[in-house]
Amino acid sequence: MADVWKLDPDRALPADPAMRVVARELYDSVADLPLVSMHGHVEVEAIRDNLSFGDPAELFVIPDHYLRRMLVSQGYTNEQLGVAPVDGSGGEERDHRTIWRRFCENWKLFRGTPTRYWLEHELVEIFGITVRPSAQTADEIYDQLVDTLGRDEFRIRPLFDRFNIEILSTTDSPQSDLAAHADLAAEGWGERVVPTFRPDALFYPDREGWAGGIRSLSAASGIEVRDYTSFLDALRQRRFAFAAAGARASDHGHVSADTTPLDAADAQRVFDAALRGDVNATRATAFAANMLFESARMSLDDGLVMQLHPGVSRNHSAEVHRRLGADQGFDIPVQTEYTRSLQPLLDAFGLDPRFRMILFTVDENAFSRELAPLAGAYPSVLLGAPWWFLDSPGGMSRFRSLVTETAGFYNTSGFVDDTRAFASIPARHDLARRMDAGYLARLVAEGLLDLDEARETVHDLSYTLPKKAYARRDALA
Amino acid sequence: MADVWKLDPDRALPADPAMRVVARELYDSVADLPLVSMHGHVEVEAIRDNLSFGDPAELFVIPDHYLRRMLVSQGYTNEQLGVAPVDGSGGEERDHRTIWRRFCENWKLFRGTPTRYWLEHELVEIFGITVRPSAQTADEIYDQLVDTLGRDEFRIRPLFDRFNIEILSTTDSPQSDLAAHADLAAEGWGERVVPTFRPDALFYPDREGWAGGIRSLSAASGIEVRDYTSFLDALRQRRFAFAAAGARASDHGHVSADTTPLDAADAQRVFDAALRGDVNATRATAFAANMLFESARMSLDDGLVMQLHPGVSRNHSAEVHRRLGADQGFDIPVQTEYTRSLQPLLDAFGLDPRFRMILFTVDENAFSRELAPLAGAYPSVLLGAPWWFLDSPGGMSRFRSLVTETAGFYNTSGFVDDTRAFASIPARHDLARRMDAGYLARLVAEGLLDLDEARETVHDLSYTLPKKAYARRDALA
Amino acid sequence: MADVWKLDPDRALPADPAMRVVARELYDSVADLPLVSMHGHVEVEAIRDNLSFGDPAELFVIPDHYLRRMLVSQGYTNEQLGVAPVDGSGGEERDHRTIWRRFCENWKLFRGTPTRYWLEHELVEIFGITVRPSAQTADEIYDQLVDTLGRDEFRIRPLFDRFNIEILSTTDSPQSDLAAHADLAAEGWGERVVPTFRPDALFYPDREGWAGGIRSLSAASGIEVRDYTSFLDALRQRRFAFAAAGARASDHGHVSADTTPLDAADAQRVFDAALRGDVNATRATAFAANMLFESARMSLDDGLVMQLHPGVSRNHSAEVHRRLGADQGFDIPVQTEYTRSLQPLLDAFGLDPRFRMILFTVDENAFSRELAPLAGAYPSVLLGAPWWFLDSPGGMSRFRSLVTETAGFYNTSGFVDDTRAFASIPARHDLARRMDAGYLARLVAEGLLDLDEARETVHDLSYTLPKKAYARRDALA
Repeated sequence: MADVWKLDPDRALPADPAMRVVARELYDSVADLPLVSMHGHVEVEAIRDNLSFGDPAELFVIPDHYLRRMLVSQGYTNEQLGVAPVDGSGGEERDHRTIWRRFCENWKLFRGTPTRYWLEHELVEIFGITVRPSAQTADEIYDQLVDTLGRDEFRIRPLFDRFNIEILSTTDSPQSDLAAHADLAAEGWGERVVPTFRPDALFYPDREGWAGGIRSLSAASGIEVRDYTSFLDALRQRRFAFAAAGARASDHGHVSADTTPLDAADAQRVFDAALRGDVNATRATAFAANMLFESARMSLDDGLVMQLHPGVSRNHSAEVHRRLGADQGFDIPVQTEYTRSLQPLLDAFGLDPRFRMILFTVDENAFSRELAPLAGAYPSVLLGAPWWFLDSPGGMSRFRSLVTETAGFYNTSGFVDDTRAFASIPARHDLARRMDAGYLARLVAEGLLDLDEARETVHDLSYTLPKKAYARRDALA
Repeated sequence: MADVWKLDPDRALPADPAMRVVARELYDSVADLPLVSMHGHVEVEAIRDNLSFGDPAELFVIPDHYLRRMLVSQGYTNEQLGVAPVDGSGGEERDHRTIWRRFCENWKLFRGTPTRYWLEHELVEIFGITVRPSAQTADEIYDQLVDTLGRDEFRIRPLFDRFNIEILSTTDSPQSDLAAHADLAAEGWGERVVPTFRPDALFYPDREGWAGGIRSLSAASGIEVRDYTSFLDALRQRRFAFAAAGARASDHGHVSADTTPLDAADAQRVFDAALRGDVNATRATAFAANMLFESARMSLDDGLVMQLHPGVSRNHSAEVHRRLGADQGFDIPVQTEYTRSLQPLLDAFGLDPRFRMILFTVDENAFSRELAPLAGAYPSVLLGAPWWFLDSPGGMSRFRSLVTETAGFYNTSGFVDDTRAFASIPARHDLARRMDAGYLARLVAEGLLDLDEARETVHDLSYTLPKKAYARRDALA
Repeated sequence: MADVWKLDPDRALPADPAMRVVARELYDSVADLPLVSMHGHVEVEAIRDNLSFGDPAELFVIPDHYLRRMLVSQGYTNEQLGVAPVDGSGGEERDHRTIWRRFCENWKLFRGTPTRYWLEHELVEIFGITVRPSAQTADEIYDQLVDTLGRDEFRIRPLFDRFNIEILSTTDSPQSDLAAHADLAAEGWGERVVPTFRPDALFYPDREGWAGGIRSLSAASGIEVRDYTSFLDALRQRRFAFAAAGARASDHGHVSADTTPLDAADAQRVFDAALRGDVNATRATAFAANMLFESARMSLDDGLVMQLHPGVSRNHSAEVHRRLGADQGFDIPVQTEYTRSLQPLLDAFGLDPRFRMILFTVDENAFSRELAPLAGAYPSVLLGAPWWFLDSPGGMSRFRSLVTETAGFYNTSGFVDDTRAFASIPARHDLARRMDAGYLARLVAEGLLDLDEARETVHDLSYTLPKKAYARRDALA
């Protein structure tokens, strides 16, 4: 490594000289475009309150289960990385410098991963670190970061400006009163930060907390949910409230992509039984599929774009879930079927000009087989960016290779960062722009695309397409 | 783009300079070999009658559901692109210049797709167009094409010669009287245009029109089909008639690759019930699997090579199917299993020197896992070219990468264009030759193959292997 | 081809000049490291008795079903390649020169396959052949090999030294008395050649020979197996005996990755019924899944690393199996599920620091979707090398591409050769080192990794990681 740790300006671009020169030109043309961040998990309150990020462990390690997971896979416990057991029994590491050291000592575990790419970008580009993390440099970096993070220009709102974020979507529960969004709107940030409607917890009536969710839905909507019909009414009310607050989309994280509707009497029966606490997994899963169908139908009226990202077995380790709760790095993808699963929904709404659906996957085997053909036929279907485990140089590269030949570029919705790590947003979008530039450069170098076409396409992928994919319907014409 | 639109002579070859120089040499050595086109959908009557192609919309847009599908995915209706509703209610666009404009204005949707590659090749190389399609150039191109397409040398037979097609297989219904083929044979074209036996419609007794198909089979074969036994007899008669008319192969487009035989009594029961109109999907599907098994058995006697391409959910949008009929771009692949599905058939016939089977897929996940190991073991099994959605630079590249290491080159059957777009045939074969040259060039550049071996292999892939794969059995020795 | 057949010193390294220079440096740094060969099928008796390899057909063709399979796929029978029918009916080719000629004449079938790569390496590097196999050169090569193979320095032990093998694991039946290993230990080879515990045949009670296997297990363990409890006791006894003889691992080749435990009474019932010869495939398969679970539990005590490689349909051709027995090239992969299948086992033992599991697959579709996420979370899980059909340049390249971004390098266990072809071991490890060097060189050339990091990583992949993955547990601290 060089004496001073720095970023290669051509990183993630193709190594081949002929491709690289084209890729660099394409990348340079979009590197400074505003960021359109339409799918993520930044807390709206953090923006409203212009929070600072705390210390290095609080910023980089403790909240990032994707990062912790790698250390856990090599023998650390989540508790050693600062995660508190949900039962309050304690025992988690409380010395944040120790947590930071554990991370820095294991920097090599992240070689070849996107976590490494993002962190390198953040540390060097945003926070001005000039030495590579290691056992030797951990304390020096810690101290420098503590100093930097304490400064006002490293609070979230100045960084929002510095990052050139044009618009950012948060993810919100249907029961949210959207007060923080209202506060931001009152300050003129209403077009910069918008909510997203995420109703999964209400759609699986066998999940813990469902009954309580229904009660809070009644409260939030002002509609007393006493049966299936009033449940739909309450959802409709909340969706319109979200749209009024600027929401562009709903977001659905189901286990499967099944969208088979139930007939109303059946749905009513499941719902009634669930209210009595009498529901099994099979019935609950069928109900969730039905609710995807109903969500599509509702979107015809309120205009929310429907995002679907199925195929993850959540909380794979029961022990980790019991001790530490959800989102601890033990969510493992499963094989996912789209063609038959989506047929009921697409048959009903797929050709309707009022309907728009963005499909995600963590099963890349479906890219060329099912997802690209669906997006290359139905006018309502767009393909979301490679997501989660696939949000990486290789994942993005394979996505374009597997999808473009069948769906083209213009049936894809552009990059989404899907992150709760606010400081990583520029690194993530930057990587996507580099990978798209590289893919287009290959087409140019192989004589399959003209350079002027590549220039327009990279601009569209970086900025135009995500704006359009998540546009309010009335803004589309 | 350059002022004059032209083709890059090195298009689709690897960009790396060391690979490109080898790839170019390999490609040049096969670029002018005759085309062996053993699997396609050109209408035999069009060849017999030496038809012209009509106007640009009739040639490029209206009949090509693969192209229309992309415009539909961005909001056009098939009717706006000239497709007439099957109920005769009308409303389709009848102004072909308008249709052509719609296509040209949306040229950018095809960036990065094989459609773009083929059309560019056709427009420039065959029809002499020198400007890129766009809103601005649509009319100019339209007028020039109208002029060109009206000339005699752009009728199908002169192009057949110009394209250097050595032999072309059409796809024909078992009930065809093969009269057009006989007419061609009478003109000395009997070895240039041969039929293919495609019996799917008779194998699924739950499909609309099945009973009528059985009646016309009786008429065509001269064998009254009144039960399962006479059904088999009639099929045998037609297969022999096809073989006598020059056919080399049968072609089977089933939903799954299942080949489980029924015992004769069971098959008889399903068939009898079907004749009474009493058959469900499960029984019909089992019957279709049985008929694959029986088709293999018949091929031992008549020598027709058995082509199988399973795994497509046809007419995914019921609304499009109802309004416009089949083949409207809404055929979506599904996951496909081969190892267990083919076991009954391969157990019975897989080692028989009289049997030959060519396997296709649109589920590329099966290439390395199932298809290459099967082809690399059974003497009867060959792998067909990457097909349909996979007939693209990336699809071909992944096919060779995923298949060659396990099955070698010599268990693959060479390129098939599978097209009804006659004018696209040279572009498609040309692309396949370029991609194979590129794949071989990579092996040479990486020190994994000697150059003289690559030279022989590219020739075999381009010409020798398809001739051999589809050779009459008696010509093989 | 050059006049003298030789190996390209840069073979299998990337062709791109910038990558190649880095790859070459990385490869050179590990090319001479000792070989750690922890998973293979070399016969321990061959090592103990320091056997010679016989003639060229006996070395290269007759015992290698992976090689024969390719000739069979092109029309040879296994009998023509020297395989004797199991019923002793004879008819196999006995003239080994003829067998060798058949192989050499068909050298081109292996183009682009790893078999070609390994054989080229062996013939040139180990045996000093200077002409490429062909019909013309077959006899010359045969004669030279006969001469070479007759020399003492080409017996297995001198080659073991020449190959710089530090440690080699054989694969052994639980009923083995490990006498050959004891003999080797007595000669000071106890740390160089160790056994592996492979109990599959005892875990599927519906397989032919199971009852006999149980009887010999009783004999070998000194524990009379009369019920499920004594069966577990006998297995425990053998596992400890293996560990005492130096074994590092157990090895499990199940059809599926299912690990659902049975409750003890259920397991007892299946076992009792099996002893009476009354067991069906469903019950037997459930029992096998249960035994994976129990094997994991046993490993907590005896420290054997658990290797699992599911997903192969063995003996796909019943006719070949009947005539020639198992392992004749007709083992075909099937789709394999890991996420849900492994959940019972990982839930019970996956976080236990005493447990270690190495996962293999021939279904590469699971690499990014399931295997990398599992290895990137559970501390006990490592990913084994790309195996069998995937042990190839492309297979290795895709493995690193699909796995690294999610699991990193340090959750992989390093290369295993999995071969019974002793003379191919250096070629196989050499290829893996080249491919890893090339993958790392790409990361460096694309600015994603520093060169010093790549240097350390290639060393770890080549040597440190396999040593650590298969280390005795007490050696890990």
